[in-house]
Formats: sequence, structure tokens, C-alpha cells
Amino acid sequence: MERLPGFRDFYPEPLPNQDVWSADVRQYIFDRWRVAARNYGFCEYDGPPLEPLELYTVKSGEEIVGQLYNFTDKGERAVALRPEMTPTLARMVGAHERNYKKPIKWFALPQLFRYERQQKGRLREHFQFNADLLGETSPAADAELIALLIDLLRAVGLKSDDFVIRLSSRQAWREFFTKRCQDSAKEYEFYQIIDKLEREEPELNRQKLAAIGFQLSEIEDFVKAGQPTAELQSVIENLGARGLSDFVKIDYNVIRGLAYYTGSVFEAFDRKGQFRAIAGGGRYDHLVKLITGGKTDLSAIGFGMGDVVLTELLRERNLLPKLQSALKAFFIIEDETLRPETFRWIQALREAGCGVDYSLTPAKPDKQFKRALELKATFTIKLERVEGALQARLKNLATREEKTLPVGDLVAAVGA
Amino acid sequence: MERLPGFRDFYPEPLPNQDVWSADVRQYIFDRWRVAARNYGFCEYDGPPLEPLELYTVKSGEEIVGQLYNFTDKGERAVALRPEMTPTLARMVGAHERNYKKPIKWFALPQLFRYERQQKGRLREHFQFNADLLGETSPAADAELIALLIDLLRAVGLKSDDFVIRLSSRQAWREFFTKRCQDSAKEYEFYQIIDKLEREEPELNRQKLAAIGFQLSEIEDFVKAGQPTAELQSVIENLGARGLSDFVKIDYNVIRGLAYYTGSVFEAFDRKGQFRAIAGGGRYDHLVKLITGGKTDLSAIGFGMGDVVLTELLRERNLLPKLQSALKAFFIIEDETLRPETFRWIQALREAGCGVDYSLTPAKPDKQFKRALELKATFTIKLERVEGALQARLKNLATREEKTLPVGDLVAAVGA
Repeated sequence: MERLPGFRDFYPEPLPNQDVWSADVRQYIFDRWRVAARNYGFCEYDGPPLEPLELYTVKSGEEIVGQLYNFTDKGERAVALRPEMTPTLARMVGAHERNYKKPIKWFALPQLFRYERQQKGRLREHFQFNADLLGETSPAADAELIALLIDLLRAVGLKSDDFVIRLSSRQAWREFFTKRCQDSAKEYEFYQIIDKLEREEPELNRQKLAAIGFQLSEIEDFVKAGQPTAELQSVIENLGARGLSDFVKIDYNVIRGLAYYTGSVFEAFDRKGQFRAIAGGGRYDHLVKLITGGKTDLSAIGFGMGDVVLTELLRERNLLPKLQSALKAFFIIEDETLRPETFRWIQALREAGCGVDYSLTPAKPDKQFKRALELKATFTIKLERVEGALQARLKNLATREEKTLPVGDLVAAVGA
Repeated sequence: MERLPGFRDFYPEPLPNQDVWSADVRQYIFDRWRVAARNYGFCEYDGPPLEPLELYTVKSGEEIVGQLYNFTDKGERAVALRPEMTPTLARMVGAHERNYKKPIKWFALPQLFRYERQQKGRLREHFQFNADLLGETSPAADAELIALLIDLLRAVGLKSDDFVIRLSSRQAWREFFTKRCQDSAKEYEFYQIIDKLEREEPELNRQKLAAIGFQLSEIEDFVKAGQPTAELQSVIENLGARGLSDFVKIDYNVIRGLAYYTGSVFEAFDRKGQFRAIAGGGRYDHLVKLITGGKTDLSAIGFGMGDVVLTELLRERNLLPKLQSALKAFFIIEDETLRPETFRWIQALREAGCGVDYSLTPAKPDKQFKRALELKATFTIKLERVEGALQARLKNLATREEKTLPVGDLVAAVGA
């Protein structure tokens, strides 16, 4: 029986082949992200992976349903596997808003699901780091969040040579639009065209823009000038004060497809342009009010970063550490009468926080030693009874250094 | 809009009320479990939360479908949210069995889903620590796995006063049955009656047993004698050698409801009997072969431990630590002209691994100080320019001790 297409199995290292994913790499990335987020004062939350379908249609309209894993549950509820985290966040914040001081700085690591057409490298689930900052309209919040994004990427070894945050402003584009067009019905279509500008042929862009009364050349000039808004200027200066200027640039090609962004928008890309966007986000000051049915009105800015593109990028840049979990000690049992005594010291070392393994059943000593090497143990330990006293023979597998010590000294010698 | 019934929201500490769950408690338990499992040489794996429905019906028959979140996806596949991890494990091990040395020691922390009737304290999802040891038939494997279970519970602060592992044997019950009854069609029904013995009225037990030709008294005598099989005796002695005798007892009341167990079976209970089983498992030597369609034949023993009962038990025993994530430093900005310099040192401390926060916008110093207290910061830090030199005023909020140092010494003073 096979797993479903677009879903992943996560195996322990070393991996059997390149077609499966590594549970150890996933955990390494999650650990680094959690530490970085907590250093920024963000707190972790999570919600259900299954939510009422309405939570998504109220925000994105009925057309979203075609991309969802949605169904009717046994209680006749219309439900969906979560395709994104923001509606859950808005629901949760709305339910207990008054209990949390503003600004609210929260992060989560949800697994998300989309029923998309199968394409190479396009999965139907991924894990996505989400960070959101709610209750602060100042561009200082935008800068704090973008600094976090930069440090999440640095936390897994990427440098300013590897990636850049392309910073733009939905507000700047709105001003551009309203100065030239009074028909607000065309506004969303205009953003959609801008969003695809880099990916489509110039001639097609020209035609689509002409159809709503815009010239491609004036748009190209606007992008090229890249004149930061006062808001973006403030973000850039803030990041500069942190020493993070090398990681960010103004780039009005970025606009983000979703309808609900209201201010700054940004995307992280690898500088070589080999991969899709690593992360993306922006300010969405009206969404919490929409999702909570007007109950809670909080300005917000957030971003999401998936694990798939990032893991591929880290592998390509050779930035994945050797991750096989290494044992501190492997006990070799030569004299089976000492097995019960050996259990006692295995237990003592494990209680002292050491990773310890051994052969569950009697085996030839050289076979046990080979297993210790396979498991990358730091030490092998063998108990021996010498003139009635129990001793431990300790061998460092890296240095080949050996020593014998009273078994009572074992925890102090190995546990440290 | 509400979350679905039987699902949980996980909020950051301090919690708004007792009806929501704590993301920090969840992470604390997961962290402790991961460390304990790795100390035992277990490696982490994971699979998809959505699997082909057939993966569950092949093992448990069509009747399981009534308890599943199952549906037909947009590609006309019959799929289900995973109700347990063992079928996924068997599928994954079967796919790459030859790449992993035996015994295979794996663990996972999946979220599992069951569409069950709503009852108090009965949820429709939970997280379940799963550990499995494959490729070793010796009771030494059973002992290793039960020792891990004991240490997972000790890792969150429980002691031998708090819980006990009730150890039994499906094999012992099979011998009991076959000695007295040759009709193997009644075997599974017999196990089902034994499984419910403690929860049903004696008279009902008597009737149900009589219907298949057994006497309640002979069963009570068998349970009361509690004569360990050779296999269980070996497990008990093995755990004794580790110093873990106080955590385990023979108890033939345990038999485990599922059909597929073949050898030892066990459950962890709180000693006061206030809660449902904390964990349960057993040996299932034929299941991998069944699920892989005969491709892989591996003996196996495993257990699962959910987060819901354990968290309730820890709360009841007052064993949940204070978990609000504490900051190392909160910067107080009195002189706004020093904000850019402050950003530089916030960044330096965060890069040194410290949790740091500050007011995103100008605020009165006493308001900033109050926020530092709320966030349980260890230090407040205030930059000042004295005769052209930048200094940091450092205040320890616990001891109220204050000192002034050159800003260049800040990372060394706080980061350590």
C-alpha cells in the first residue's frame, strides 16, 4: 500500500534514498526556528488541523473550495483541512483578545493542506512557520517581523549572499492605481496582473494592462524608480539600525496575490533565483475584523515560511548538518552473567541524560562493536569483574583511548 | 465562528481560562518525551496525517470506518485522517526495511483523529507518543520498551507512587482458552469479555462467560494467582535489574481489546485509579506482514501514550511547571534619539541567543518597566550617553541590583 500522492513520509537518518524526507532535518529546522522566534519574544500557539469550511470561505470566497481537502463529517458539518493558519489565528485571538497584552507576538508551526494539481516539487501538504504581530500599526512592527524572518533564515545557516527580502507596499500600488483609475472594480484585477508581471511575457502583460487602461511602460518606470514610501523608508532605516541592510531591498514587483493585504508586503527569495519564494507575508489590518464578524478589530502583520522550498535550498547549498542521532555509549556484553549488572548501569547513564544502547540478545563481541560504530557511539563500555570488584572498560571510539575505572565512577566519567 | 467540537486550541501561557489547552505545556511534554526516547536509542519518524482508508480497513475490518474521519478526495480516493500510527509505521518500515539494521527502534508524535460520540473528557483528536521495537522476538525487547514507557512518565515528574504498569500476556490467556475450549471462533469474543471484566457487573460477566462455556470463578482464580509466564518472568527480572521493579506488576485483568496482539500486553495506570489508562501496548508479531501484504515479516512490540489523560493527571498532581516563556532582557528606551543604537544591541543580544523584547513605539518609561515585569524579564537594560560614551544601565528584576557598564560589555554580561 502506498502513501497518498503529494504527502511525505519522514524517515530517520541516514535516509534509505533521496525520495523520502528526513524526520531529523525537519526537527533540526523546527528547533532552530523555535529558538529564534522565542529570542524575538514570540509565543507559540496551535489550532486544529480540521476547521469549519466557513472559516476559509468567509475570507477567500467560494472559489477557495476547489483547492481544499474539504468534506462533510459524520455530524453533517462542512469541514476542511486547514490550507493556511491566519483564519485560525484570527479566530483564536478574537476569542480571547482581552487576555493578551498588545502587541500580540505569536508563532506556530502548523501542517497545511491544499488539493492542488500534481506538479514536480509541488506537494499537497507542508509545514509552515507562521509569525504574526497584532495590535500595532506602526512600521516598527513591520521591521520587527521582517528582522525575525531574516534571523529565522540565518538560524539555519543562510547568509546575505544566499537570500534577500524583497520589500514592497500594497499602499504604494493602491496610490498608483487610484491616481490613474477611478473604477475600483478593476483594482483587484490590476494587482493580479502586477503579481504575475515577472512570470508572464511582456506582450501579454501589455495587453492585459491596456484592457483596464494602463500602460506597461509607466508601470515599469514605477518599479524601476523603486521610490520607497515613508512607511517603507522607516522599515529600511529600522532594519539598518539592526545591521540588517544587506538582507532587504525595495522591489515593487512584489505585490502578493491575496486580496486582503493593506500595507507592506514582502517575499524572501534565494539570490540565484533557483527556487520559488521561500517565505512571504504582509500587513492585513482588516482581516481579523472580517473573520471575527466585527467582534475584534486588530491591525496585524504576518508571514509564512514553508519547509519544502527551504529544505531544498539548504540541501542545494550544502547547509544541512550531519544529523544522525549519536549515542553517548554502547555497552558491550561479553560475559552474559554480567547482563543484569549492565542493565543497572545502562539505566544509571540514561537517567543522567546520556543516549545509551546495547545488544538486546547475546551476540559475538565483534558484532556488538560493529553495531556501536554504526550507531556513532562516543564510547563503548564493557563491565568486568576483577578480583570481586566490578570495573568498567571505557573506550573512546574517536580517539581509540581506553581506560578502566571503578564502575561507581562511570556516570561521572561518561555523563559529563 | 467556533472550532469544531472535540478539537483543541493551544494558547500561550498564561492561559485565558481552563477551557483551552496550553501550547507551552504541550511543548514541555513533547520535549521531555523526545529526550527520553533518544536516550533509549529510539529515532524519530513521521508519516502523513491523511492515509488511504484501506490502510485501516485491512487491519481492523470495515467496522472501523464508523469511527473515522474518512471521505473521498477530489481524485476519487477513499482517504481517512489517521486514527492510529501503527499501520503507517508498518507501511513505512515495509517500504525500506532492508535499509535499517534490526532491531529497529523508532518513535513518533502524531496527532490522531477519531470520530467518537462526544463525552466529557473524550476528544476527537489527540497527540500520541508512539514507540515501536521491530525485528526482535526476545522478551528483552519487551523489557526495553516497558523501561522506556516508565522513563517517559518519570521524565514529566511522575513517581512509582503515581503510576504502575500492569503487565499481562495474550499468550497466557490463549493457553487458558485453548486448554478449555477447542472452538477458536469463540476466542476473540472471550478476549473481549476479559477486556471488560473490571468495568462490567459480575453477574453480566458470569452470563457472558457461561454463554461460551466458561466459569467466572475459574477466571477470577487465574487472575488472582497471577502466575507469570516464562516470558513475563523474564521481563520482570530484566526490569528488576534496572531498578524498576516498583513500577510494574503482573495483572491478568489487562488483555487489550485489539485482535492483533500476540504476546505481552500492558497498560499504564495512575495508582489512585482516577483516570483512564495513560498508555497501552503489546506485542504484535504478525501485523507488519498483514499490512505489507506479506512482503515484510517482522516481529514487533509497541505502545502509545496520549497527551490528554497525561496532561490531566499532571495538572491534578500539580506537576506542571510554570511555563511562561521568560525573556532575558527588556530594553527600556527613555531617550528616543537612542532608539537606533538600542536596535543594534537588541540584535546583538538576540544573536547571542538571548530572548529580548522592547516597546515597538515610544512609551512612558514606567509603562515600559511594567511591561518588562509582565514578560518576566530577568533584566531591564537602558542605554545612556554619558560624556559622549554609550553606557548600559542593567537592572536585575529579581535582586533589584543595578549596574552601569560600557555598552561593549553588554553581551558578555547578559548573554552568559
